[in-house]
Amino acid sequence: MRELVVHEVLKSALHNGPDSEIVYGGWRLTYAQLYERVLRLAQALKKRGVGRGTVLGVMDVNSHRYLELHYASSMLGAVLHTVNFRLPPDDLLYSLQHAGVEWMFVWEGFQQPLAKVRPLFRNWVWLTDGDASPEPGTPTHEELVQEGRAEVPDEATTVRETDPYSIFYTTGTTGRPKGMLYRHRDMLLASLGILHHLATHPTGAAAGSRDVYMPCIPFFHIHGWGTALFVPYLGAKLVLPGKATPAEQLRLVVEEGVTWSNMVPTQLHMLLEAADQAGVAELKGYKILTGGSPVPSGLARRARERGIAYSVIYGGSDQLAAAISVVPRGVEPGTPKAWEALRTNMLPLAMVEVRLEDDDGHPVPADGKSIGEVLVRSPWLPDGYYKDSERSREVYVDGWFRSGDLGVMNPDGTLYVVDRKKDAVKSGGEWIATGVLEALISEHPEVAAVAVIAQPDERWGERPLAVVQPRAGAGQENGGAVRDAGAGGGGVDHHARLEESLRAHLAAAVEQGRLARFWIPDRFVFVEQFPLTSAGKINKVALRREMVR
Amino acid sequence: MRELVVHEVLKSALHNGPDSEIVYGGWRLTYAQLYERVLRLAQALKKRGVGRGTVLGVMDVNSHRYLELHYASSMLGAVLHTVNFRLPPDDLLYSLQHAGVEWMFVWEGFQQPLAKVRPLFRNWVWLTDGDASPEPGTPTHEELVQEGRAEVPDEATTVRETDPYSIFYTTGTTGRPKGMLYRHRDMLLASLGILHHLATHPTGAAAGSRDVYMPCIPFFHIHGWGTALFVPYLGAKLVLPGKATPAEQLRLVVEEGVTWSNMVPTQLHMLLEAADQAGVAELKGYKILTGGSPVPSGLARRARERGIAYSVIYGGSDQLAAAISVVPRGVEPGTPKAWEALRTNMLPLAMVEVRLEDDDGHPVPADGKSIGEVLVRSPWLPDGYYKDSERSREVYVDGWFRSGDLGVMNPDGTLYVVDRKKDAVKSGGEWIATGVLEALISEHPEVAAVAVIAQPDERWGERPLAVVQPRAGAGQENGGAVRDAGAGGGGVDHHARLEESLRAHLAAAVEQGRLARFWIPDRFVFVEQFPLTSAGKINKVALRREMVR
Repeated sequence: MRELVVHEVLKSALHNGPDSEIVYGGWRLTYAQLYERVLRLAQALKKRGVGRGTVLGVMDVNSHRYLELHYASSMLGAVLHTVNFRLPPDDLLYSLQHAGVEWMFVWEGFQQPLAKVRPLFRNWVWLTDGDASPEPGTPTHEELVQEGRAEVPDEATTVRETDPYSIFYTTGTTGRPKGMLYRHRDMLLASLGILHHLATHPTGAAAGSRDVYMPCIPFFHIHGWGTALFVPYLGAKLVLPGKATPAEQLRLVVEEGVTWSNMVPTQLHMLLEAADQAGVAELKGYKILTGGSPVPSGLARRARERGIAYSVIYGGSDQLAAAISVVPRGVEPGTPKAWEALRTNMLPLAMVEVRLEDDDGHPVPADGKSIGEVLVRSPWLPDGYYKDSERSREVYVDGWFRSGDLGVMNPDGTLYVVDRKKDAVKSGGEWIATGVLEALISEHPEVAAVAVIAQPDERWGERPLAVVQPRAGAGQENGGAVRDAGAGGGGVDHHARLEESLRAHLAAAVEQGRLARFWIPDRFVFVEQFPLTSAGKINKVALRREMVR
Repeated sequence: MRELVVHEVLKSALHNGPDSEIVYGGWRLTYAQLYERVLRLAQALKKRGVGRGTVLGVMDVNSHRYLELHYASSMLGAVLHTVNFRLPPDDLLYSLQHAGVEWMFVWEGFQQPLAKVRPLFRNWVWLTDGDASPEPGTPTHEELVQEGRAEVPDEATTVRETDPYSIFYTTGTTGRPKGMLYRHRDMLLASLGILHHLATHPTGAAAGSRDVYMPCIPFFHIHGWGTALFVPYLGAKLVLPGKATPAEQLRLVVEEGVTWSNMVPTQLHMLLEAADQAGVAELKGYKILTGGSPVPSGLARRARERGIAYSVIYGGSDQLAAAISVVPRGVEPGTPKAWEALRTNMLPLAMVEVRLEDDDGHPVPADGKSIGEVLVRSPWLPDGYYKDSERSREVYVDGWFRSGDLGVMNPDGTLYVVDRKKDAVKSGGEWIATGVLEALISEHPEVAAVAVIAQPDERWGERPLAVVQPRAGAGQENGGAVRDAGAGGGGVDHHARLEESLRAHLAAAVEQGRLARFWIPDRFVFVEQFPLTSAGKINKVALRREMVR
């Protein structure tokens, strides 16, 4: 029995498109060249002691280097920690330690996190866009590639499909980030599952071997939603945007003939703005797979108006891919009804099961109205969080994953995810953990209680809104009404001053590496008291109803 | 980890097309109904003692019954012996015994084999198109379906992906048929591999969830080349042709809106003749996956002229799917170049590896000219023949399958299979074992030696040609020249008489169940002596060169 291991994908690349290009900056490699470079990199790493189970941390933008590491690591049976460089620095460090990273591969373009990370690792490889190592004596990726022999390492034939392939840390809504350990087989089946769904069903993001792909989802996030695996599997042309701005991405789309990208709605929003500014009226033939947060209908309309087709994917790092929107049977593609369905009707991937449960654990009917928590079962569902059996037990139950998302099941068996049960804020496709923010804010001496809730935002999807109850005596009486900082009425000066102080407090936390800057709430609102649940906790549902505008 | 077992496919059917139809004769079932019937059938069989490892033999035309048995058997962990009813009756019986069949499910439409098979089995289920059992007291399939509860059997959750799913016997070129035992995982991955290839690459037989499928390859043959699995996986409409004649198949294509079929070239030939007779000038939008024997270029042209698109698949029961023809990169679909490539350029399926070896085991270059034996490695390659380690060792070597086929590798990595290394005759997509025929013919008292070789045939692809050396003295001298029976020259009367006697001899063997009628050679040629190889064996290559016209 031949094993479903990730590096087998390269054999398909060599059959399907040995001469297809991988483009990054000034680099143009064919898959035949990429394959040779992967072998060389694997041999060079092997010589340095990298082998089965060695954990390799990588921090890079989407580049050919990152792609090469995917496969060299796979061949050696090593484990690729695709470092989530958007985590707050403290959490990032925690993830490196928790995963047991032994080697770091880091792009020189990253600034802030490096000062803290660099001293911790003796085994370090620089990822550079230039020729020389930024640190004499420390090798670059390119030096390793040039050094190794172009020969399949023996380990490549002994890697098992149930061996770990990669590890990724995702922000928890409370506490430390959670590690997900992905087996070769799971990541392969999930990635190909996305592709096969897009290829066999009528979607807006139809994908095939003759498309040109530019993944705008960073590779750290589930390998760019599987593109690092399924594009080579097709042998299709791959354009890697690196740190490209929306305007540069737009230029790549036009110049390289890109037909397919993935991105969160915020990225799509920015791309459309860039198109406005560049006077690019039409992007017909450009297909986008989006997801990560709900797609606002205004955004969907603006995309359509430019000729962009899209589908929405539902999934996440702790369950991988679950569903992708399709045009329902009997609906003509290209019609308004089809477009609306592509925003809201997500069909489970092959062999994925989705069901809804209400708060009492009862099944929720597929009536297109009733809301329940989304539970998912799939061939690639992870067993649980890495070295965290307690949190695993809460959400991985009897082979099902309790997503914490709220959804509606349509009568045709498709899913519309309407909300999250928990209260995390998703900004630009990235989670902001309200619990972490609340804990930080509550450290301020003038704060009695705090709740952070999501405020819808056209650009970022959501932004955090902090609702603060000032400490009695520290503030001044106000009329009991909810007031904005800066709004008219009693306590305005005091609230404005407190907001300023809270912002300084959080800015300090950013400097200390305890917080990512984009986590700082956009808005502060001050209240005399919170609505409470029957259990005495802050009632965030009521709060949102009251606060969010 | 969720297992890749065959009955999981039905869950996708329920998501992807619960209301899509399965059509057979007057039957119209939705997948939702089919699913319920499968559960009922499984429960009824379970009640009768069918369980893990029970071998169920099924002889049926492509029908909803056959489809239901696929999934009921899978859910119980039973093994489905898809009986090759085109085997000579002796071999068919051998296959039932060798596989350890405990239950038989037989369509009443079969006549000849039944008399011999029926008495051997106490556990018997009739498959009928009518209402009543042809044998009072013996249940029909439909009675079992009506009897069982619509409840998932407990066994369904304990079946492992490495458990055997089905067994199939294929004609060996010498000796008894060879049994192939397929694991759930292998059959699932191979079947879906065919679909995904057709969905992601530009082929003539593009396949998706909105196609309407009519498999004309019998389900016994690798589950109708995977259609019994991948069509429900898509939730697509499925038209089951049963024993339909080519004219009836044509009617189904038109009336049911069929867009996709699979068939061997002989079936395609007959379908085109039926279209001629029915005055159907065009079948635009009809896509055909063909294979099993080379596609004559004249046949390909005639299909194209009617608007039929096609691709060619390469594979077989002992290796499953290996490659399917595609339009090469850079070639415009629909052009003459594209059409020719679709006949000759077979791209290996994802994660399948193909290489060519010469007679000395050296690699053959991919130059589009050099011929070598085709070796295949794939994620679903069986371990070997069932209970036949000796023959397995010959062809399953170091994880590779030695196909016995001769091929040319094109510079773009695609494969063109040009011939078979061995000498079996393939007639209408079915093997005729020359060794078996030779053994039978040589039993005739007037035969000294005999060789059966393939004679190209426009309708059947190939037909057997028997070259006979009459026993000295039994015949009469002839001039040493090769002569046809019935042709002018010395010995004509004697040869005509001998041919008549040989035909009677073989007809008797058919009556005795030792031979299928269609195995009887079309032509007999008589020779004084055979060209021999250095090893003293009949040189069939030289013989073919000399004889075949």
